[in-house]
Amino acid sequence: MPKISSKAGAMPSSPIRKLVPFAEQAKKQGRTIFHLNIGQPDIETPEVMLQAIKNSNIRVIEYTHSAGNESYRKKLAAYYQKFNMPVATEDIIITTGGSEAIEIAMMTCFNPGDELIIPEPFYANYNGFSCAADLVIKPIRSSIENGFALPPIAEFEKLITPKTRGIMICNPGNPTGYLYTHEELEALKNLIVKYDLFLLSDEVYREFCYDGKQYVSVMHLEGADQNIVLLDSISKRYSACGARIGAMISKNKEVMTAALKFAQARLSPPTFGQVGAEAALETPQSYFDAVTKEYTARRDFVIDALNQMEGVFCPKPSGAFYCIARLPIDNADTFCQWLLESFHYNQKTVMLAPATGFYSTPGAGMNEVRLAYVLNLDSLREAMTCLSEALKVYPGRTINN
Amino acid sequence: MPKISSKAGAMPSSPIRKLVPFAEQAKKQGRTIFHLNIGQPDIETPEVMLQAIKNSNIRVIEYTHSAGNESYRKKLAAYYQKFNMPVATEDIIITTGGSEAIEIAMMTCFNPGDELIIPEPFYANYNGFSCAADLVIKPIRSSIENGFALPPIAEFEKLITPKTRGIMICNPGNPTGYLYTHEELEALKNLIVKYDLFLLSDEVYREFCYDGKQYVSVMHLEGADQNIVLLDSISKRYSACGARIGAMISKNKEVMTAALKFAQARLSPPTFGQVGAEAALETPQSYFDAVTKEYTARRDFVIDALNQMEGVFCPKPSGAFYCIARLPIDNADTFCQWLLESFHYNQKTVMLAPATGFYSTPGAGMNEVRLAYVLNLDSLREAMTCLSEALKVYPGRTINN
Repeated sequence: MPKISSKAGAMPSSPIRKLVPFAEQAKKQGRTIFHLNIGQPDIETPEVMLQAIKNSNIRVIEYTHSAGNESYRKKLAAYYQKFNMPVATEDIIITTGGSEAIEIAMMTCFNPGDELIIPEPFYANYNGFSCAADLVIKPIRSSIENGFALPPIAEFEKLITPKTRGIMICNPGNPTGYLYTHEELEALKNLIVKYDLFLLSDEVYREFCYDGKQYVSVMHLEGADQNIVLLDSISKRYSACGARIGAMISKNKEVMTAALKFAQARLSPPTFGQVGAEAALETPQSYFDAVTKEYTARRDFVIDALNQMEGVFCPKPSGAFYCIARLPIDNADTFCQWLLESFHYNQKTVMLAPATGFYSTPGAGMNEVRLAYVLNLDSLREAMTCLSEALKVYPGRTINN
Repeated sequence: MPKISSKAGAMPSSPIRKLVPFAEQAKKQGRTIFHLNIGQPDIETPEVMLQAIKNSNIRVIEYTHSAGNESYRKKLAAYYQKFNMPVATEDIIITTGGSEAIEIAMMTCFNPGDELIIPEPFYANYNGFSCAADLVIKPIRSSIENGFALPPIAEFEKLITPKTRGIMICNPGNPTGYLYTHEELEALKNLIVKYDLFLLSDEVYREFCYDGKQYVSVMHLEGADQNIVLLDSISKRYSACGARIGAMISKNKEVMTAALKFAQARLSPPTFGQVGAEAALETPQSYFDAVTKEYTARRDFVIDALNQMEGVFCPKPSGAFYCIARLPIDNADTFCQWLLESFHYNQKTVMLAPATGFYSTPGAGMNEVRLAYVLNLDSLREAMTCLSEALKVYPGRTINN
């Protein structure tokens, strides 16, 4: 029997996946599970997007241009320009979700064995994409104490070796919810210019910024055009994760020419997703206002509830719809499994993501969990009650009640 | 300015792509171009598929299961069973087109530097996927004289080295239209078992077999379950290239477990494509009967017309909707460019794919072109007239008229 590749053997499996059988078992026992473990929003997709797909007059579902429909790319460039991001049509390749934007960007910019510095905790699938592209992630610790702000530039410089070829960030951050400031991004820019590195910035949560705080994109930075690659997706913006439409964006012509060859090999992004995404650009501002209001209320409730629990600390995020909380527990993996396997409060329990999956440094995040506040307030209230009760009786709790 | 990766620099660009600017120029000059260069069928997508997408009652376009919707996988397994292919639901991962099935299968089965033997001419994008996965393609020449039948097994054995990890075929073949016989596939099976290799079989043209000839799948072979990976797509079957729905299939549990990790990293295949693909399984047999009849008529016309041209030889294919013709020309790349740039017959011309892009051996296919008979008979008639006239006046023709 032939063996699978060593790369396939090394592909990471996220700690959340390991919990799935326990969640299924709990459901079989008739328990209600509040899913705060995944970034699948409950918000409805904009009507204008759904209608465009229903009303499309397609008779033959043809390949589109490998870079995506030109009509969509043109309108998408205009969308970025509304954010004062100087993106032209030719700077855009439409991808199959943000996932493919990451894959193609990594293969275009980095050789096998190259090192990529990423502030941790970071989106767990960066591990999988790096493994597929044979890259080495060099994590740099950000701290829950200051809400996961950008680590000092001096700490980045300590990690730079001749093999370092790039830095990757997520802004607003998954899993932290942290929104990088203009100063932090300027400092990063100076660093990438100094060492001639690529900066890959995953900004799929652009529309989710709270408290009037300003979103700063890497595309706002001046003087580093050739080093910067923006990774985007409509999944969260329009609650359209299954449309599988994203984008890879850069002003670097050599990067885009090479990226297009990868895009051509896979032929084209999905047709119906593009039809919907193009129409979704007409989504009224009232949709986003309502969504922002809803997420702000959810965030405020969850963060307050968490910080009121004894021994819990959770910084207040300014963006995305995640937060990372430090809990008085011995082991987040064990705790999250226990919540599903052994705990219920009135036949209800909560599913969380152990933060260990978001850290690359072994042992990091052992007493932290990520919560996605993607449920309505009533469900969040019940979920927080479950968590509060669970922390009182969890055998591995590290404080006495 | 940071440099792109050497992999990105090495990504091949197909000879067809190089012709696109010349086609655009010809169109600007008001010329009609008959596109026989690409496998984008003109056949309508089945109504049942289009209606399912229009009528889907989706309010939130959510991620699906990373392996694809279970309801779809169950029905797809039943579809294969109708062909007497012993495929179970758990043997299937739904992919984003056949392209992603190839990508994931290559990454799962092969390490960087591994050698993969592929009979040439082969589908040009295998080059791109192999480059992305850092594989080395070892081409084995098949011959136009016998219609591109499987080369003798002894020739395969000559190519096998300690680095050889697999063999890849396309059946029915793109670009050859050749349909492998049961004997040929049995011989291949014995070879892969003998040397413990993976056999990747791309069978996306299953529904396009003519003259009552029997389609034999690698899934029909006995005793090599653990070595075999089937790659599939609905793109051609339902004329739904833009749906981006394919499948990777194997009875090898280790392969499928590893492949699922790659699938999980990219989250899920497109939702609307899956909705359509599931419904498309209800496409009535009459649709396929009509399509087969239409393609048979097109093939018969094109092959006859080609072989009637002086100095042209084109074997009659039994499957897919392509054929490779040998022309009395000096250089297929030059000829195909000349057709667009310098030739017209009553303001009409034809776009063909130079066969050089389907060969990995340098210099091979220099006097061959691929034709996709994806236009209606009237257009094909005009296209063949154009080609016939062109061959009479092409400056690089190798026979005198």
